[in-house]
Amino acid sequence: MAEIIQPRVLKGFRDSLPRAEIERAAMIEALTGAFRSFGFVPIDTPVLEYAEILLGKAGGETEKQVYRFADAGGRDVAMRFDLTVPFARFMAEHAGELYLPFRRYHMAKVWRGENTQRGRYREFMQCDFDIVGVDTASADFDIVATIARSMAALGVPGATIRVNHRGVFNRFLERAGVADKSVEALRVVDKLAKIGEPETRRQLAELAGEAAADEIIAFIAGGEAFGPTLERMTRLAGGPNPDSERLAEIYEMAEACGLSGSIELCPSITRGLDYYTGAVFETFLRDLPGIGSVCSGGRYNDLASLYTKQRLPGVGASVGIDRLIAALEELGRSGAKAGYTRVLVANVEPAMAPEYQAAAAALRDAGIACEVYPEPRKLVQQYAYAEQKGASHALIRGSDEKARGLWQLRDLAARSNAEHAGLGSVIAALEG
Amino acid sequence: MAEIIQPRVLKGFRDSLPRAEIERAAMIEALTGAFRSFGFVPIDTPVLEYAEILLGKAGGETEKQVYRFADAGGRDVAMRFDLTVPFARFMAEHAGELYLPFRRYHMAKVWRGENTQRGRYREFMQCDFDIVGVDTASADFDIVATIARSMAALGVPGATIRVNHRGVFNRFLERAGVADKSVEALRVVDKLAKIGEPETRRQLAELAGEAAADEIIAFIAGGEAFGPTLERMTRLAGGPNPDSERLAEIYEMAEACGLSGSIELCPSITRGLDYYTGAVFETFLRDLPGIGSVCSGGRYNDLASLYTKQRLPGVGASVGIDRLIAALEELGRSGAKAGYTRVLVANVEPAMAPEYQAAAAALRDAGIACEVYPEPRKLVQQYAYAEQKGASHALIRGSDEKARGLWQLRDLAARSNAEHAGLGSVIAALEG
Repeated sequence: MAEIIQPRVLKGFRDSLPRAEIERAAMIEALTGAFRSFGFVPIDTPVLEYAEILLGKAGGETEKQVYRFADAGGRDVAMRFDLTVPFARFMAEHAGELYLPFRRYHMAKVWRGENTQRGRYREFMQCDFDIVGVDTASADFDIVATIARSMAALGVPGATIRVNHRGVFNRFLERAGVADKSVEALRVVDKLAKIGEPETRRQLAELAGEAAADEIIAFIAGGEAFGPTLERMTRLAGGPNPDSERLAEIYEMAEACGLSGSIELCPSITRGLDYYTGAVFETFLRDLPGIGSVCSGGRYNDLASLYTKQRLPGVGASVGIDRLIAALEELGRSGAKAGYTRVLVANVEPAMAPEYQAAAAALRDAGIACEVYPEPRKLVQQYAYAEQKGASHALIRGSDEKARGLWQLRDLAARSNAEHAGLGSVIAALEG
Repeated sequence: MAEIIQPRVLKGFRDSLPRAEIERAAMIEALTGAFRSFGFVPIDTPVLEYAEILLGKAGGETEKQVYRFADAGGRDVAMRFDLTVPFARFMAEHAGELYLPFRRYHMAKVWRGENTQRGRYREFMQCDFDIVGVDTASADFDIVATIARSMAALGVPGATIRVNHRGVFNRFLERAGVADKSVEALRVVDKLAKIGEPETRRQLAELAGEAAADEIIAFIAGGEAFGPTLERMTRLAGGPNPDSERLAEIYEMAEACGLSGSIELCPSITRGLDYYTGAVFETFLRDLPGIGSVCSGGRYNDLASLYTKQRLPGVGASVGIDRLIAALEELGRSGAKAGYTRVLVANVEPAMAPEYQAAAAALRDAGIACEVYPEPRKLVQQYAYAEQKGASHALIRGSDEKARGLWQLRDLAARSNAEHAGLGSVIAALEG
């Protein structure tokens, strides 16, 4: 016999065992339902692409993390590191086959050779949804509403969507005379939640002087209701403008849909520096703010400029599914279960296997997931297995029950059996 | 502006556009439902693994096709080329965390640098389900029954599951005195459907002589009912034995479940040469036999011998989802649709956007997928978009309708409008 190869996975990679995978599947199903209810459609793209295409826009840090190699044909290929770049390439390539506005969702794995010491994985899932080809408040709001419906579908309690607009912020910086330091100022401001106000103020003063720092701090202060905050921001940005108007429109739609309590205008969020150009969104859990945003996104003014001359403005967001799974676990709201089996049909007499299988088929026809234990064993062992699968009941029939024309239905938690004259009665009891 | 990068995918790879991806998603959902109803649970494994682990068992042809490279840390890694090898590694690695029998399904992409001239793709999906840790007729039958329920869930008409047992065949070859030529004989017999009986006989005669060829041809003849075929096979194999008894048990269970019409004993199928050791299965469509088997599998006596000394017998099968999609299309049974949107809320007056969004939210609350057209356009353009999304209705309200307290619900196929006094009436009409 050959030597045993030690079974192991690569550093930064992991297997997903049934309990984790069942939870992930349930979350993906909930998200899918929410996305579809807004008319988003799914697409898929290859995991491997020409490195030139995936890395066209990427900077140093991304490029270093990408899994890139020469394939057997000598092509320079790479594994996708996000779903945005492939989506841009997809929109450019299939422009003629698609219609605009195009609403798509894409839930799939991506790979980055990240530093695993920071608790990051090198293989993880992204769940993106976008509306491309239109630049209106209605499309922006659709993303906000989709986030809200997704969180509700996931059973995530107390989700608050923080909204801001990069344009309003930039107008303000211009008025404050620090437009030339916009990039650095945005970077400092983005850290507010992490480093606190005093340190933010200190860094801003160092960057733009005391007076500008005070103005910026006044601008980014949060905590008020949407209306007053928007009023203050608008005033500090030099008065009404299309960007502040856009925020007002989004809020009006949220009010009309009963979502005004779920959104918050938060002038300090900026979401990175290059990609987003309009409204930006982050989603925090009231009971677990420290976990960070579980769904973020925003508006960009040109998705696919690298691959086409057609201008494609869009808006979208990405659900942090791994972070949400961690959050739900921490909140004790995890729906993780061991399996789908509701009933284990016990194997008492091997000769009765056809009868067991027929009973299982009848239960399945009634929509009850079940399995036949595939070999005769002590009932206590079969019950233990049923509990490991998360089954609530066992169905038992030996020659004695058969002679009496009965099935025993055992409630595994209560450890009590009930006799039923037929499978119809068993099914009724399970449905009741 | 930088030069445009030509958007394109690698040879042998492809994008999945919404219509195709919607169909794939529907099929995966149907399969998932069938698998779960039998108590199978999902797992996932990394796409990238140590090449040594993935290729431990692989021969020359597989090895040549694998995407293999050195990662940034210099590790010799490879992308999975099937789901069986990672499953074996998974079972060996997590033996202590799992329970037996273990029923898992895994639907995921795999990669092989195949010759694309044969119409093959280098990235494709596999859908595997297995029961590991037990060797009984009940487990074998569970796979048959899962195939049958999967085909029904997919809406595939006239699926016939062909069953055979490698052990019965080997016993027969031994009795016929050609056990030493078993591998070659199996290979010839496996081609029967392709090359026809006269050529099969000729090749067998060349291999084992005229008398043996006649005996083998008599053995593999099909077309009778399960019982008589099994009787003949058993006789030619030297009389009753545990392997023929296994086939009889499987058939008995199929009869008990009303599946006897869906299975066929087919002594010529052998399913490859090394992996399978017991019952083997193939699934053909009565109306489209030429497309080949759409779901194949069988019993193996040791899943993970490469990675553990624990013996893990199992049985499983794999659904050929791409082949099924092609088959359903050819049969005109394809359920492909353009989108999930049922109702497009038309954008007539931009100022009424909040009202449109509120109407859409009310429809979604009633389980009706809908979207608000995100900008004002001519209604005819909005209707055209709605039809591209597969919507059945448009919901229209301008200032006139508003003044009259109405919504117009347009049936897009009939091109007729109906006036409704409120959204409750609209929802009732859509549900009716």
